[in-house]
Amino acid sequence: MSEDNELSRREFVVRSGAVVGAGMLMSSPLGVLAADGKEATTKSRGYAAFDTSGKLAPWTFERRTPGDNDILIETKYASICHSDIHQMKGHWGVQKYPQVPGHEIVGIVTAVGKNVTRFKVGDRAGVGCMVNSTLPRNKLATLENVEQYSPATIFTYGYPEKDSPTGISQGGYSTNLVVRDHFAVHIPDNISFEEAAPLLCAGITTYSPLMQAKITKGMKVGVAGIGGLGHMAIKIAVSKGAEVYAFTTSPSKVKDILAFGAKEAIVVDDPSKMAPYQGKLDYLISTIPYQYDVATYVSVVKPYGTFTQVGMPVGFQLSLNALNLAASRVNFNASLIGGMKETQEVVDYCADNKVLPQIQIIKAEQINEAWENVVNKKARYRYVIDAATL
Amino acid sequence: MSEDNELSRREFVVRSGAVVGAGMLMSSPLGVLAADGKEATTKSRGYAAFDTSGKLAPWTFERRTPGDNDILIETKYASICHSDIHQMKGHWGVQKYPQVPGHEIVGIVTAVGKNVTRFKVGDRAGVGCMVNSTLPRNKLATLENVEQYSPATIFTYGYPEKDSPTGISQGGYSTNLVVRDHFAVHIPDNISFEEAAPLLCAGITTYSPLMQAKITKGMKVGVAGIGGLGHMAIKIAVSKGAEVYAFTTSPSKVKDILAFGAKEAIVVDDPSKMAPYQGKLDYLISTIPYQYDVATYVSVVKPYGTFTQVGMPVGFQLSLNALNLAASRVNFNASLIGGMKETQEVVDYCADNKVLPQIQIIKAEQINEAWENVVNKKARYRYVIDAATL
Ligand SMILES: NC(=O)c1ccc[n+]([C@@H]2O[C@H](COP(=O)([O-])OP(=O)(O)OC[C@H]3O[C@@H](n4cnc5c(N)ncnc54)[C@H](OP(=O)(O)O)[C@@H]3O)[C@@H](O)[C@H]2O)c1
Ligand SMILES: NC(=O)c1ccc[n+]([C@@H]2O[C@H](COP(=O)([O-])OP(=O)(O)OC[C@H]3O[C@@H](n4cnc5c(N)ncnc54)[C@H](OP(=O)(O)O)[C@@H]3O)[C@@H](O)[C@H]2O)c1
Repeated sequence: MSEDNELSRREFVVRSGAVVGAGMLMSSPLGVLAADGKEATTKSRGYAAFDTSGKLAPWTFERRTPGDNDILIETKYASICHSDIHQMKGHWGVQKYPQVPGHEIVGIVTAVGKNVTRFKVGDRAGVGCMVNSTLPRNKLATLENVEQYSPATIFTYGYPEKDSPTGISQGGYSTNLVVRDHFAVHIPDNISFEEAAPLLCAGITTYSPLMQAKITKGMKVGVAGIGGLGHMAIKIAVSKGAEVYAFTTSPSKVKDILAFGAKEAIVVDDPSKMAPYQGKLDYLISTIPYQYDVATYVSVVKPYGTFTQVGMPVGFQLSLNALNLAASRVNFNASLIGGMKETQEVVDYCADNKVLPQIQIIKAEQINEAWENVVNKKARYRYVIDAATL
Repeated sequence: MSEDNELSRREFVVRSGAVVGAGMLMSSPLGVLAADGKEATTKSRGYAAFDTSGKLAPWTFERRTPGDNDILIETKYASICHSDIHQMKGHWGVQKYPQVPGHEIVGIVTAVGKNVTRFKVGDRAGVGCMVNSTLPRNKLATLENVEQYSPATIFTYGYPEKDSPTGISQGGYSTNLVVRDHFAVHIPDNISFEEAAPLLCAGITTYSPLMQAKITKGMKVGVAGIGGLGHMAIKIAVSKGAEVYAFTTSPSKVKDILAFGAKEAIVVDDPSKMAPYQGKLDYLISTIPYQYDVATYVSVVKPYGTFTQVGMPVGFQLSLNALNLAASRVNFNASLIGGMKETQEVVDYCADNKVLPQIQIIKAEQINEAWENVVNKKARYRYVIDAATL
């Protein structure tokens, strides 16, 4: 950890103390100064995976001690992203367990380190896929909206983190979170916590490539896979004036899709269903989380149009047919969440324009059932865990 | 076959007769009017594959009778493309045998159909990957430089062709060729036949995406796989003023690569050799003909730059790592040869600017040995078969 991020325990405790006085502090920050006067850690209660089974169970663990550049957040809600499931099941590589998933997190700031100026105790804050960096404060500030591609970035769970007692970062299905201030965004007052949560990953991951593609009024935009990400992609593209074509494998989603503002909902129960759209769209974003017939989906984009993959299949491996890709003349790219500046932007944009996820609030004890529903395409469209039930 | 392409035998024969009179006609066109007065076919002598072994042997066969829109070409040279090997070995799907490969063909026009105005007997002509179309003359004229993506196009060998006696089109490792006039280009006088041959596929396949990428002076262009296509990509990009970085697996090619004008030749005997180039290039074209570590090659292109795949591996299948592709922020596309207008353009451009392939002329009996050399990366850099030895 860089020098300027080292714990300045006294200062942190002082501020925390002030918070306690204001009745804002929950249990955890009290642990910052342990009884024996040694540097202490922060207790957290969450749901963790213990193996690749895809089943979570309650777990109590210690978080790293907040430093000068950190904020401590009391979680209010955390929503469920398919990435949580992929990673815990080992789809993307061998994991260290126990591991707490969750990277769509909203809550209240309960303590701030001495260098922190962007947040104060009591602020509404959101955290997405990134929580820390090995870069010092001044270097981190120069990353300019591409933190997700910095090799120094520490993602929200399962990443080696030197000063974390568990050795890895631990995610947001938990009562609190310690995060470098750079990686938190403000949640404005004109959006509820529970509706803001999914914006921290599903929102930014679809908003970022849509902005990159310069979506404008009347553009024909395709969205493939209408789950958490896909339904946000529809809503964001519609809000920008695009003519949206949604490709789903679930007939039961058609009504919702049209209600989200899509022009057409195409049920792809057979590849032939895509034939009428061949070469018709300016752009397509695919959120499909498993291997699929990429060539068929690519074929609906116009020559020289762009196809963006955000779904991240097992091993991140996608098989492409080079001849079909040539025949389509489509530019194929992939996109990973978005930078911090743009994350704040999407939260503000969605709050201001009422581009809100369709959510189902659940209790912690329903997490395993919710995960099964996500895998079985039964989620409508984002499960949000009420952290009070953890 | 469409009406306007039907044989107008009398007219064709008349013109052919004129040629015979001029001493321009070789054996084949004499067969146009058979002894019994029936519509005749055109005899050709070539080298064919009889199975997936990758071994060719001499074969005599009949070509389709030339029609009103066709020209008959006496082959002078035909060069060897790795695609010939892929297709005959069945890498791209099950084939009909015997099949004559070859789609880099140059020769002399020995007869023309009655509708043909672009060519006259005695002209120097070249033919690439396409020879025919099921579209009538007026429709074909509207394709505007994207004939390769028209489902009506008949490629030079192995394609079902109704009026071909063998049922499929037969390629250029043969003494003559019947081709729809639309699919032949003029070979100007300021280039030799043998140096023009490789331009018909290796030339156009690299020129087209390089033009699409708007290669300009000083742009950093990568080329991966320095064989027939790759060495032309270097030369064309250099001629446009680009700073070329050539990635080869063959240390013995380094000297040649620098002589072609590349700024650097990087021997990729280990993926780590590419690390210093990460995010440095504006564009890269990959001609690598087999599965490879795409992500590592993509990583040398700058964010938002383009990577074009022209190598066509077994089953056309390429495996891509979606996370690495996201991290690179590179647009990945593929390209298939080029249209007929652009094919004429590349031939003229290379002739005028002396952008010439490095060739080795061989006799027909050396074809099998040459194929082995191509597969073993020993070709330097294009084998050209002297059709007089067929
Ligand atoms: N690139 C990034 O930065 C990033 C960020 C977040 C998430 N992700 C990835 O994005 C993907 C989607 O995440 P999510 O949370 O939106 O998941 P989700 O809620 O499960 O939605 C995915 C949707 O894809 C469709 N689908 C699921 N399985 C399919 C299959 N086998 N074949 C075809 N379609 C299928 C379903 O939609 P229909 O019912 O409409 O067919 C499903 O609802 C995941 O791979 C996740 O890891 C990537
Ligand atoms: N898209 C199209 O329209 C089109 C048109 C024509 C050809 N093609 C395809 O383009 C590819 C190249 O054709 P070509 O005639 O240029 O072939 P080539 O002369 O054999 O050149 C290919 C070069 O790639 C490198 N290479 C070969 N095998 C490799 C491997 N296993 N791993 C890494 N590098 C390897 C070698 O260069 P180094 O020695 O420098 O490593 C080799 O010289 C073929 O797949 C062909 O079918 C496509």
